[in-house]
Order: sequence, then C-alpha cells, then structure tokens
Amino acid sequence: MSGETVPLDEALHRVLASDITSNTNIPSADRSAMDGYAVTAEDTFGASETNPVELRITGRVRIGEIPNIKVGRGEAAAVATGSYLPRGEVDAVVMVEYTRVSGDRLQIVKPVVPGQNVAKRGEDVKKGQVVVKKGTRIRPQDIGIIAALGVAEVPVVTRPRVTIISTGDELIDPGERRKEGKIYDINRHIIKAAVLEAGGEPLDLGIVGDNAEDIRTRLKQALASADIVLISAGTSVGERDLVPGILATLGEPGMLVHGISLRPGYPTGLAVVNGKPVVSLPGYPVSNAFAFRVIVRPLLARFLGSDVDTEPTVRARLARRVAAPGGLRTFVRVRLVETGDDESGLVAEPIMASGAGVISSLTQADGLLIIPEDSEGVDEGEEIEVVLLRPLKRKQNEAR
Amino acid sequence: MSGETVPLDEALHRVLASDITSNTNIPSADRSAMDGYAVTAEDTFGASETNPVELRITGRVRIGEIPNIKVGRGEAAAVATGSYLPRGEVDAVVMVEYTRVSGDRLQIVKPVVPGQNVAKRGEDVKKGQVVVKKGTRIRPQDIGIIAALGVAEVPVVTRPRVTIISTGDELIDPGERRKEGKIYDINRHIIKAAVLEAGGEPLDLGIVGDNAEDIRTRLKQALASADIVLISAGTSVGERDLVPGILATLGEPGMLVHGISLRPGYPTGLAVVNGKPVVSLPGYPVSNAFAFRVIVRPLLARFLGSDVDTEPTVRARLARRVAAPGGLRTFVRVRLVETGDDESGLVAEPIMASGAGVISSLTQADGLLIIPEDSEGVDEGEEIEVVLLRPLKRKQNEAR
Repeated sequence: MSGETVPLDEALHRVLASDITSNTNIPSADRSAMDGYAVTAEDTFGASETNPVELRITGRVRIGEIPNIKVGRGEAAAVATGSYLPRGEVDAVVMVEYTRVSGDRLQIVKPVVPGQNVAKRGEDVKKGQVVVKKGTRIRPQDIGIIAALGVAEVPVVTRPRVTIISTGDELIDPGERRKEGKIYDINRHIIKAAVLEAGGEPLDLGIVGDNAEDIRTRLKQALASADIVLISAGTSVGERDLVPGILATLGEPGMLVHGISLRPGYPTGLAVVNGKPVVSLPGYPVSNAFAFRVIVRPLLARFLGSDVDTEPTVRARLARRVAAPGGLRTFVRVRLVETGDDESGLVAEPIMASGAGVISSLTQADGLLIIPEDSEGVDEGEEIEVVLLRPLKRKQNEAR
Repeated sequence: MSGETVPLDEALHRVLASDITSNTNIPSADRSAMDGYAVTAEDTFGASETNPVELRITGRVRIGEIPNIKVGRGEAAAVATGSYLPRGEVDAVVMVEYTRVSGDRLQIVKPVVPGQNVAKRGEDVKKGQVVVKKGTRIRPQDIGIIAALGVAEVPVVTRPRVTIISTGDELIDPGERRKEGKIYDINRHIIKAAVLEAGGEPLDLGIVGDNAEDIRTRLKQALASADIVLISAGTSVGERDLVPGILATLGEPGMLVHGISLRPGYPTGLAVVNGKPVVSLPGYPVSNAFAFRVIVRPLLARFLGSDVDTEPTVRARLARRVAAPGGLRTFVRVRLVETGDDESGLVAEPIMASGAGVISSLTQADGLLIIPEDSEGVDEGEEIEVVLLRPLKRKQNEAR
C-alpha cells in the first residue's frame, strides 16, 4: 500500500492513508454562539421584563478581531456570532433579543447561566483528536473538517493500477466497423468503469486474439505495469481457454483456483504470478460482472486499505419461487415493483434471463437477490433483502 | 441544458443527454448458448441412453466465424458457446454432455425441443429499442450495453458551472498560516466536493472580505462565468449581511426569498439575477451543508435534466425524544448503534450539537433524521427512517 499527497480539493473519494489528527483546538478560544452581549452570568441572575438588570457596555468585539477590551463585574461587551469573548470574567452571552440599549447602559430582561451561548475552546475539536481515520473514503464533510484544521494537503493511498485485457478472436471494439461474425467487447469497458468506481486506476491493454503467444506477451506486459491483472476470456470458456497454461510459464505459483462457487460467474480463475494477483474472468458479461463484484472489488479494497462499501438494500417480497443449486452463491437479477396497497410494499420480480450473456438483464435490473451457498432457493412471497443496483424511485417520496 | 459528446470510457457518472437506441439486434443472428451440436430438434425426439439417436456430423462452426456449412435433417454440426448456428434447418443445440462421437457419427442420448440452448436473434436487444434513457446517470453496466451496440461516443449533458465564493473578514484558507482571530474557510471546500458529487463543475472564486464593493465585483465576475452562483456568508449573519442589497444592484429580479423553513439552514437567500440563480448560503458549516442539500442539489439536478438520487435509508428506533419547532424542516444528526438482542435492530442516538457551527457533528454522524415541517418532534422509541451519511457497517455482514 503506497501513499501520495494530494491537494485537499482533489481528495474527494480517495482513501486516507493515515489518521488526520488535530493540531489545534476548535474553537481556538471561547467564542460567542449568538449575536448579543458577553457578561458574567451571575450578574444577570434574577433579571426579568419587569425587573431588568442594568450593566455598563464597555465596547464591542468584532468577528476576526482579537479582543483588547476587558469586561469586569457589572459590565458587558457587544459580541457577534463567532466572535471571541472579551477578556475578563465573562462566561456567558445574552442574546440581543433579551436586551435593551440606551447609550452605554444595557438592560437585560432574562438571566443566563455560565457557559450559555458560548462555544468553549476545543468544544468542536480537541487538539490531538483524530478527526478522520485512516482507511476512510473521503466525503465532502471529511474535507470540511480537514479544512477547519488549516490542512491543505492530505495523505491518500495511491490508486492500485489494474490492467485489463480481453481475449477472443470474435471481439472488436466499439467505434470499429461492425463485421459479420464479430461482437463488440463489453467486458473491458464495464471493468474500466467499475475499477474507477472502486478507487483503482484502470490501464486498458485492449483485445488480444485466441493465440497463446499473443496472450503470453500481453500478460507479461500487464504484470510489468500493474498491481492487479484482469483478463477476460472470450465468449467461450471451452477449448480455447489458454490462460492457465500460459500463467504457469510466467511465474510462480500461477493458477491457484479455477472455478468458484458462484452463479453466474463460475468459470473464474485466481492466480498469483511472482506476488501479483491475476484474475481470469469469465467471458460472458453477466458472469464477468458478478465475478468482478465478488473477487475483484474486495481485492481492490484490500490494496486500498479500506472496506468494501456496504451497498444500500431494501426489503421486498419475492414474486415467484427461485430455485438455486446448492453449493453455489446465486445472483438473481430482479425488478422492483411498488405495490399500491401498502405504502412500503415492494415486490421483487426475478428477471428470467436465458443466459449469462444477456447484458440487458444487467441494465434492466433494479437490484439483486443473493441466495447463499447453503440454500436451495427462495419461496414465492418470502421477504428478501435486495441489493440496489440503482437508486430506488418511490412513488411517494418523502420530504428530504 | 447544453450537451457534449464524450468517449464511452469517460462517460461514467455523467448524465445521458439523449436516449441511446439500438441500431442492431443482439445477438445479430441465432447463436448457440452452449458448447455442443446444432441439430433439428425433431431429429432428437425419443433419444435416450439406451436408445440414442444417431446423426452425421457435417462440420464445425467456430466463434467469430460466419458459418458456410449447412445442416439438413439427419445431420449435426459442432458449435461453441456464442458461435452462430450453421445454415439449414437447425433450431436447437444439444449440450456436448449428452453426446458421444465416433468419427463423423454423433450419438445423442437426450432430446431437445426447438429453441433449446439457442440465443435467438434480437433476444437480448432488439433493433430500435431504447437501451439507456436520457437523464440516466451512467453506471458501469450502462457503459456495457452501449459498448455492445458498438457505440464509442456518447452524448452527455454539459456539467453546470457553479461558482463558489466565501465572504468574511475572519476567513483564511487552509495552507495559510494560522492567525489569531482568523478561522479557516470550510464551506467553499465542502461545497466544491459536493458540487463534484452532484455532477457539477465547481469554479472557486475564493474568499472576499466583508466589503460591499469587493463582494459586488466578485459576484459580477461569478455571474459572468457560471450557470449557478453560490455565495456563503461569513460566520455572522447579522449586521454585515450585504449580499441582498448588492444583488439588487446587479440585475433583475434580485433576491426573492431570504430565510427558508429549514433548521439548521434558515438564513438562506434565493435570488435570480438576469436569469441566473444565485444562492446565498448560511455561514455556519452545518447550516451551509443542509441548505446545499435542500436547495442546491435539486437545482443542479434540474440543470442536468436528471433526478436527485434517492439516498439509502435504514429503519431505526430513536434513543430519546427529539423536539422540533413546528413549521421548520429539522435535520437531526444521529449515530447508529446496533443492538445485540435483535439482528436487524438499530438505535439512532441524536448527536447533541450545541450550535450549527459544530463541524465535527457532520463527520461523526452516521445518518440524518429528517423531521417534517408539520411535526413537533419524534418520541423516544419511535421507529424512524434514517438517511445514511456513510455506508452502514453491520457486525453481522451477509455474504455478498
């Protein structure tokens, strides 16, 4: 896990490489939390509309100004929200609404207690306090608190470089002229975007034909330039799956696992070559996407020293029974339908996709039902948890 | 709403400016969904282990190859997953597992029905079908289906330019030397990140002191270069709030609303100057953040022609009663605590922040309880919906 320093305003969504610890108190000294008058609280005790307390105004503290006036017992100074308290025995602020002024005489009609309307030194952030933790994916509010410390550069984890190769004689790239018998490569383009979303830096090594020597050359190039190597098979995982053999010639230990208990996504290979992870992903786009989700996303999180973000879920009732083969984790794409009779009622309709190649099932799905390895299916009407693939649009949207 | 064209691989999270309509069928012709043999289904009827059907193999269709062989009744051709079907009367594929081969003789031990293991032309995407709708914020899978059409450039909505100004004599910028009486500007840095997240292009116009002429000059500059102008007040919203008066001199109609029914966030001003929206945001960072959320985010969505993404929520029980002033939408920052006794049980603890200036309350909060204008509070133990401000980490994490 290597780090680098970036300007604060470029740190959004990067992963923090070390704790940000406050080198200061915020506020750095007692400040007024209201527009009004700084006083000694005890002087105001008993004040009321009919029996106001009268104090002498000795001056005014402006925002951004270091107070040079001093307030003693029987005295008050005008303050604004955010301005420092004057020196002396002041310990509270009376809101301007509860005062009347005549020349340098201040009448107070409501008492305050010590500390009232005062933001104490260090109340927001204490010196030495960790304000944002290492491993955090930086949000706008994290940038805010780092700015509050005066820090303009932040240590972030360097984005892991992920090389992406697609193999297959049948593949051409979007923008190329359509050719009978050829199909456009989808996987590389989805993966590049998914790597970006997961915090990695995608390096596109293009398409390589089903030729052992070409694949070997491209994999060597990938291993030389990347932290993680992803290679997607051609559409077929049959006769021409040359990758495991090639990896064996490139370094130790080579392919470790070929086939994982995932559906779709079974034909996934996991390899390590001279310390670098290589993931051989299935050619079918849907399988490819789920293998990415289950294997590559956590791998990237590991390189980043962060957690995989928990995804939003909703509860729904399953519209019809879905069978699952025991022993495989099964991903069922579902559409979510809001039922009229129940405000919060959602029904999940499984999308029947005849094959893992049906890319439209990925864009049409609102969410995923994930059936664990030890289950043989989910019954019609059962309440399930659905991982959202897009923000859920409710007919009845609450005020936000 | 103006548009531009970007390369597909740079389209992630941009908003699509027009529908993407398929100019082709996917698959473009009938294809095999399995490794096996293309046959006429009727020829296989009655086949079994003990009584196999025997056909003659006339050849093989490879992936990416336009078939030149023809298969008639009593014949079969080898196919691979994703390869085209041969010409002739074939209408199904027998999986290789249910066949035995000896020379050019193929024995089939299990019948298929017409259409079995075949991906029909247009089954995934039909020519003329809208595959991704205008206004969509592009996800990896959307990039996938656009790639499948061979489209390498996509029309996206130009990011609205948002100029950002902070005002206040007391403000200095992170990286500047700490000075007694000065505080670091937080709002501009949070806003820049939040504008980026919401799909806008932030233009930083820096800090300007509490001086009418300087503010006027900076606002003129902002109006000349932006689609939306945001100006954050200094810490005080009292005596020195010069913005409404200045806007009135810059163009019609000027300030329309000053003060919105939001807590925190009340001192927000909405203006239009010569057709351009100007939002005057409160100086306190927490108020600033909520005013951004309620006013600026939907404004950006409007410019983008998209919806504001619904945020993930969870149900929780409120740890203690929270009172709210009727007539104001109230945002309560909460911490979420998982209770041991109930697997899905979450308790929401309101964070008691003494003032809207307490920036640490924003980073410490796990979520928001939003109390609508017509409510006077929420009782202890009541089940509430919490908008998540960070991904929820569950102790018991399900297999994903």
